[in-house]
Amino acid sequence: MRNLNQDNITQAVIASFANTTDPRLKQIMTSLVQHLHAFAREVKLTEEEWFQGIEFLTRTGHITNDKRQEFILLSDTLGLSTLTVAMNNDKPAGCTEATVFGPFHVKGAPHYELGADIANGAKGTLCRVRGQVRGINGEPVPGAQLDVWQSDEDGLYDVQHEGLEQAQARGILTADSEGRYHFRSIVAVPYAIPHDGPVGAMLEATGRHPWRPAHLHFMVTAPGYETLITHVFRDHSDYLDSDAVFGVRQSLVCDWVQQPDGSYQMEYDFVLNPAK
Amino acid sequence: MRNLNQDNITQAVIASFANTTDPRLKQIMTSLVQHLHAFAREVKLTEEEWFQGIEFLTRTGHITNDKRQEFILLSDTLGLSTLTVAMNNDKPAGCTEATVFGPFHVKGAPHYELGADIANGAKGTLCRVRGQVRGINGEPVPGAQLDVWQSDEDGLYDVQHEGLEQAQARGILTADSEGRYHFRSIVAVPYAIPHDGPVGAMLEATGRHPWRPAHLHFMVTAPGYETLITHVFRDHSDYLDSDAVFGVRQSLVCDWVQQPDGSYQMEYDFVLNPAK
Ligand SMILES: [Cu+2]
Ligand SMILES: [Fe+3]
Ligand SMILES: [Fe+3]
Repeated sequence: MRNLNQDNITQAVIASFANTTDPRLKQIMTSLVQHLHAFAREVKLTEEEWFQGIEFLTRTGHITNDKRQEFILLSDTLGLSTLTVAMNNDKPAGCTEATVFGPFHVKGAPHYELGADIANGAKGTLCRVRGQVRGINGEPVPGAQLDVWQSDEDGLYDVQHEGLEQAQARGILTADSEGRYHFRSIVAVPYAIPHDGPVGAMLEATGRHPWRPAHLHFMVTAPGYETLITHVFRDHSDYLDSDAVFGVRQSLVCDWVQQPDGSYQMEYDFVLNPAK
Repeated sequence: MRNLNQDNITQAVIASFANTTDPRLKQIMTSLVQHLHAFAREVKLTEEEWFQGIEFLTRTGHITNDKRQEFILLSDTLGLSTLTVAMNNDKPAGCTEATVFGPFHVKGAPHYELGADIANGAKGTLCRVRGQVRGINGEPVPGAQLDVWQSDEDGLYDVQHEGLEQAQARGILTADSEGRYHFRSIVAVPYAIPHDGPVGAMLEATGRHPWRPAHLHFMVTAPGYETLITHVFRDHSDYLDSDAVFGVRQSLVCDWVQQPDGSYQMEYDFVLNPAK
């Protein structure tokens, strides 16, 4: 392994993985190195560009903390998240489609009773949300758990507000004996993903905007069913056709109906796939 | 851009770069996304593996600071650095070959007079280093600047010693009117790259060791010539054939001769390529 050059380096790196005990890891590292090197070769990456890449990743790491995940944002804006979700959630027709997880989920959100106001002080116009969780054969899923999160009227999640201690516009609900759920929150609006960091610089340099169409995040879990991570999008929202993170699926778009008193109502049923 | 799936997502991301004003950036982003997605498809990356990747990059970012560059280490151990250096330093026969920069160079190292002891207190056996800087036609390069750095007898660079304020075993020298240089330092020994972080975990999981053969780093600059970033390796050192960062070239290996008093002497001439 001396005299490595641009023609034999890839094989040398792959050979260095010969003693990997986990076959899956070996497969992943081998494929990663092949495609990484193929990229560098295809563009004939210069040393200065290589260093710009190192600095980009360093900035991405340094801006990431327990409340901001810039690497997920990077994966989302490069379509890697959508690709990964799509490959792993090939569900039978009739099931609710999955979409990207995003960087704003928080573990251990507060539990609420059905009907509660999960906004918990977040700014925005009242929106009542309801629906049913069913299985693929139409059976209700009693006790399904719905973890819900969304941004406020300013387009910010609670974790993006400096110094805010309590959870806002996020919570966990348990569906009733018929799989039905309902709660109050605020109406979601389009928001810009955080764009004051390296991902924002990438979007700007490539002529892209940082906006996402209005949506509500759901993670629905129930024993015997596959976990569903998805959004419900608001019809007629701006950016439905140019989502910065490539998350929109037509089947997840529904009408959020304005009521005579100015508040909104949104109804959406989730259909879960049986666990494998 | 709705209903993205595993078949059309790559084209959708590439299309999103349509308004990139810098054509080189557009080319790089397009190629990067194609190879990144091809990797994820080839291994059918799972969501859990995707998240392990996010966490790996996050740890890599968090351990990186002004004295430790884990992303360069990652690039080095995956052979990307050697590939990039090789592609960009295709020099005419007779020129000294380049190799990886590594993560331990420090800008603004102290300047020394020829003959000085650059060890500056670093632990190790005396080694006298000398040689000449020439151009491709044999002409001496008067006043060439040599930026030198190396680890100590414990295999650590000065920046790896907690609380050490001054530079040790690192310095900048100016060749004389005939391009000749000489200085005193300590003899380099094999060392393990930092392996208490994510890169070390990757090496361990893939059955690789973290060792590098004994070497001295040089960056040689002179007006009218291409900058040369390289190492001189010590012949018969362990790990010459399994360098953890794939940096060894046979032409950079030379004999470091032990003297009757136990000290070492190393002589190496550098041949620079004219600037383009
Ligand atoms: Cu590829
Ligand atoms: Fe969101
Ligand atoms: Fe080194």
